[in-house]
Amino acid sequence: MITGDGEGFDIAMASAGTYASMQDLYAKWPEFAEWAAAEATSQPSGAFDPNDLEAPSPAPRQVFAVGLNYLDHISEAGLQVPDEPAVFTKFVSSLAGPHCDVILPSGNVDWEVELVVVIGKVTRTVKAQDAWSHVAGLTVGQDISERDLQLVGNPAQFSLGKSFPGFAPTGPVLVTPDEFDNPSDLEIGCYLNGEQMQKARTSQLVFPIDMLIEKLSAVLTLYPGDIIFTGTPAGVGAVQSPPRYINAGDELVSYIEGIGRLTQNFRNSSSKRMIG
Amino acid sequence: MITGDGEGFDIAMASAGTYASMQDLYAKWPEFAEWAAAEATSQPSGAFDPNDLEAPSPAPRQVFAVGLNYLDHISEAGLQVPDEPAVFTKFVSSLAGPHCDVILPSGNVDWEVELVVVIGKVTRTVKAQDAWSHVAGLTVGQDISERDLQLVGNPAQFSLGKSFPGFAPTGPVLVTPDEFDNPSDLEIGCYLNGEQMQKARTSQLVFPIDMLIEKLSAVLTLYPGDIIFTGTPAGVGAVQSPPRYINAGDELVSYIEGIGRLTQNFRNSSSKRMIG
Repeated sequence: MITGDGEGFDIAMASAGTYASMQDLYAKWPEFAEWAAAEATSQPSGAFDPNDLEAPSPAPRQVFAVGLNYLDHISEAGLQVPDEPAVFTKFVSSLAGPHCDVILPSGNVDWEVELVVVIGKVTRTVKAQDAWSHVAGLTVGQDISERDLQLVGNPAQFSLGKSFPGFAPTGPVLVTPDEFDNPSDLEIGCYLNGEQMQKARTSQLVFPIDMLIEKLSAVLTLYPGDIIFTGTPAGVGAVQSPPRYINAGDELVSYIEGIGRLTQNFRNSSSKRMIG
Repeated sequence: MITGDGEGFDIAMASAGTYASMQDLYAKWPEFAEWAAAEATSQPSGAFDPNDLEAPSPAPRQVFAVGLNYLDHISEAGLQVPDEPAVFTKFVSSLAGPHCDVILPSGNVDWEVELVVVIGKVTRTVKAQDAWSHVAGLTVGQDISERDLQLVGNPAQFSLGKSFPGFAPTGPVLVTPDEFDNPSDLEIGCYLNGEQMQKARTSQLVFPIDMLIEKLSAVLTLYPGDIIFTGTPAGVGAVQSPPRYINAGDELVSYIEGIGRLTQNFRNSSSKRMIG
């Protein structure tokens, strides 16, 4: 899926039969992107149902997530700017499409809107100045987090508490870098029940996309379809006074300028409703 | 691959054509295990070259790794027993077979022999008493760790510093739980250049395999082929006085009773050798 100027083009439909899966498509991204760019220019269709959209990269081999990557969020968390990106994972079983219901586990569930990068080439020891050519596109993500489990233990490991089902929605579409005036400076934010909770610009990233790709690819190989959650700006619920968390019935809307929005509706599990 | 009483049976050879990949095999594990058990009993072959062995689960959707899961290792690290398993990941690009060369990155590279579990069924909210029926088998793993990158930042996230290429060797074979007298009490250890560095029993796990599966599956879904590095006992190099780390030319041999051994040989990258 590629968008431009508000018009959509259903790549999956247009390329049906050519690619066995989205993973297969990302494995052939450079040739696909060239074809898609020509198709999207010549015949934008707009003919898709937003409710049918799934995660742009639903089965990545690797999901990278970065903590503490906006100064204002580091400050509100009372922590120091890390010398290296604080990298954990959101396990792939937590991935979801852009519009989904999320069942609240016990604990305290918080929001973290994030810019998400999808990788389009095998990437190993790539320098920042070459990094953007390895990006298939950008999308919106929510790094939904259950704070009790996230922060248990010393040192706390973030991955499990951020990996309940539906805790990693992405979408609604993948936007190729060339579609933006400046893909490194986009407004990002989220609303809880219509109240704006986060608002920032991606130009404020401590480790921007090109540097994250340099840092990650200095350690390991990134594969086509791999995704990077790049960190959240200020405005999460846990640091408010008193803390605010997500309740059953809440609606969370997350957006990035030029990409679109995610919508998650939260509810208790049916067993909890029976108890309550 | 299944072993018993020192005899091997090349499942991959015997089942060639039946399964598209190891992931496909794990997706059909219950029927496969029934077939393999009968075949292995009737005609153990022993006819495979140990050097040809690859990782028992080379392309898992999820890799779970548990820190601080042996009391003696928690003690030597000067930390507290966690209330919940300290779960991170080793990114799949770090997976390797049982016998491989590992290029040393800059920093301080340490050893951590671990019991590794491979999942054989879709697993969600499974209680400890039912957990073993979800295990395809056990294998040996090394959670090789570059301590500088592992411990950077606050709170330190372990995943990236434990995910350089070759830092997650597993094998040499997968042993089904029924092949052990007691799959929860196995000698585990490792040798560096012939000197024993770690020696313990898997019965000392703080969160044993059945409890790890209960805890993980309470949060998320485990898929067939997913693997769990269960934590390392005492004897790592970083806590020795002075600390000991792996150098170029070193050989690391890791073993678990009833499964077999891994062998890793470490070297500097060729560019480093040119500089040196």
